[in-house]
Amino acid sequence: MVKIAVMGHGVVGSGVVEVLMKNHNGIERRAKEGIDVKYILDLRDFPDLPYADKFVKDINVILEDPEVEVVVECMGGVNPAFDFCMSSLKAGKSVVTSNKELVAKRGQELLEVAKQNNLNFLFEASVGGGIPIIRPLTQCMAANEITSVAGILNGTTNFILTKMITENMSFDDALRLAQNLGYAEKNPSADVDGDDACRKICILASLVTGKHVYPDKVYMEGIRNITLEDVAYADKFNAVVKLIGMFKVQEDGRIQISVAPRMVSKSDPLAGVNDVFNAICVVGDATDEVMFYGKGAGKLPTASAVVADVIDCVKHRAARKYVYWEPAVDNMIADYHDEVCSMYLRLCGKSTDELMVIANELCRECVYTDGVNPDEIAIITDIGTYAEQEATAKKFLERGVNVISAMRTLTL
Amino acid sequence: MVKIAVMGHGVVGSGVVEVLMKNHNGIERRAKEGIDVKYILDLRDFPDLPYADKFVKDINVILEDPEVEVVVECMGGVNPAFDFCMSSLKAGKSVVTSNKELVAKRGQELLEVAKQNNLNFLFEASVGGGIPIIRPLTQCMAANEITSVAGILNGTTNFILTKMITENMSFDDALRLAQNLGYAEKNPSADVDGDDACRKICILASLVTGKHVYPDKVYMEGIRNITLEDVAYADKFNAVVKLIGMFKVQEDGRIQISVAPRMVSKSDPLAGVNDVFNAICVVGDATDEVMFYGKGAGKLPTASAVVADVIDCVKHRAARKYVYWEPAVDNMIADYHDEVCSMYLRLCGKSTDELMVIANELCRECVYTDGVNPDEIAIITDIGTYAEQEATAKKFLERGVNVISAMRTLTL
Repeated sequence: MVKIAVMGHGVVGSGVVEVLMKNHNGIERRAKEGIDVKYILDLRDFPDLPYADKFVKDINVILEDPEVEVVVECMGGVNPAFDFCMSSLKAGKSVVTSNKELVAKRGQELLEVAKQNNLNFLFEASVGGGIPIIRPLTQCMAANEITSVAGILNGTTNFILTKMITENMSFDDALRLAQNLGYAEKNPSADVDGDDACRKICILASLVTGKHVYPDKVYMEGIRNITLEDVAYADKFNAVVKLIGMFKVQEDGRIQISVAPRMVSKSDPLAGVNDVFNAICVVGDATDEVMFYGKGAGKLPTASAVVADVIDCVKHRAARKYVYWEPAVDNMIADYHDEVCSMYLRLCGKSTDELMVIANELCRECVYTDGVNPDEIAIITDIGTYAEQEATAKKFLERGVNVISAMRTLTL
Repeated sequence: MVKIAVMGHGVVGSGVVEVLMKNHNGIERRAKEGIDVKYILDLRDFPDLPYADKFVKDINVILEDPEVEVVVECMGGVNPAFDFCMSSLKAGKSVVTSNKELVAKRGQELLEVAKQNNLNFLFEASVGGGIPIIRPLTQCMAANEITSVAGILNGTTNFILTKMITENMSFDDALRLAQNLGYAEKNPSADVDGDDACRKICILASLVTGKHVYPDKVYMEGIRNITLEDVAYADKFNAVVKLIGMFKVQEDGRIQISVAPRMVSKSDPLAGVNDVFNAICVVGDATDEVMFYGKGAGKLPTASAVVADVIDCVKHRAARKYVYWEPAVDNMIADYHDEVCSMYLRLCGKSTDELMVIANELCRECVYTDGVNPDEIAIITDIGTYAEQEATAKKFLERGVNVISAMRTLTL
């Protein structure tokens, strides 16, 4: 019987305890040993729970108990989660976490200490909730050179965009609905401004490049400015608007990485991912495109990913898992102005005939569509670097054309 | 440097050698050791290859060389692949295979000997080609009780059905096109009659239940009888026709398992899987629905899955992977007459008004649609066991109604 401790008894932490108890027999069969929660660390009291006697308020009880082999961190936030995880590793305990902010911001330091102490630091639940992605990326696709990853990594924004697309609901109304359903926080910034997706794409980029990619280095744009007109134009271009976290590995080994709303062609499997579902497309040189789809959040999906990591820790006490990346290096992230893509531009300020003439002059192979409102059109520009796209937009302004909105397209 | 041998230099075997050479550095970094192909077993000669000196024709050269630690089997078929794999395991070498027929028909015996000798017998490539599925199912979802699996497991039939659906091509024409493109064999039976999908769903069912599920115990129906009318009716019901390999775990632990064409609602993520792509939906009690999507066949995707297994063998020489299932037990597969589903029925032989009256009498909550031809209608029957569905069809016949075609729907 392996003893573990769970730090934090919120949504995910309580889910971990629930999954361990509910599927006890199957888990024991797969781990080849029983797994027993010895302590739960939480400052709150839960006197009515059947396992109320397991609660402790002092981390040192866990750190000083040599019986505890694995510590599960489900507290969220960087502090004190980082200190508690670090202390656990230094006390010789493997650590499993669902905390994407922690892994994205301080993961390398924890991986380093885990490596030095021949312990595991695992975080399958930090990206994609219950969707298996960390292990497939590091193990199943280990024979590939991975060239790009693009994902719908945040369920809340995908829910909002789905409501805008399928029910013509405004951003504000869709956000309010998401809040009422408990999908979005009262302060929705981490979701709608892209921070949450950014942390997840950083974790995936760190795994693929083998070097820590920090969120504050990543170009990030949220979905607050997406309008119903943008969504309608996307439909005219046979596309949908999705918040995409992505990176591409350049020939020189540097990466293009960003979080931004993009027009995604309906022929792309990511386009069909709706509501709170997440999906991650990985392109490897041998496998080509592979996609992983499922619920990216929620108590039991996330908890089940945490428990799978715990099982792995228990099974691999002899042989540490090789999840690891090195410290960040300078200059590994390419300037976002160098990204090659085409752009959706919504144009007005002239007659539609004049708009088309000017568009044809500035973008020789552009695709355009009639306006969803009178006196405007929308185009998809020629492919070029983002710097070139900005130059084109500037030329439109110089010709007296008003660019009402602009959005990247998704090209892998 | 770890020495391996590759048995069979066909499409997959040559792909394995290619991936190992092309991505040598990345693979060495991930395996923590270089991987060197010492022998390639093939009865043919390849004098022009740069690695022509590696070819051998006698399996004993490999078996008797203690330097060879991992043997990769890409020969296909059960004989002599089974004997060669068994001999390799008995000679103390781990075995990796892409051979679904071998794993589905004789996998348990090989797993048993691998276990006894503390060796690995891995087969990620046998299901879904380059799509990671075996490892996610056994590791990432280890905290779940898996309740059902349903997949589009054969790219050839999915290509044919996609052509029928999107280009109104007849089955015969679509099959001919698939043959011309090299997707289908001259004798297409293994694909279109369901054997290939059946082997794959048996492997997944064996993994989930922990007991060998043999293909000859599985209800199987191919796609030869699917007509363009069936496809058109599916569209009227907002569904598409897909060849689905699936199983559900019943309350009593027995499984419902089948391969059959089914009408799949367009709201199901499997409905959007087109052309030669495969996808597998797994439902766990904690994760809910998770889907894996990608190319289910092809030289490099399949080879990359084989190489990922080789990397795992190399990394885990100390700790054997716990992929294993026990011998089959009697009575573990439920009678297919007990499966609960609704059915699509295409009806004629009376006026459409009379057909609707009779349909309403026999299926009180059925959904129906106008005929794609005059003097016929189609319905989706009430949910019931397959035995009940057969009884209903018989009642239609007794009332003078002709049932032109019948197909299950997909309900997980």
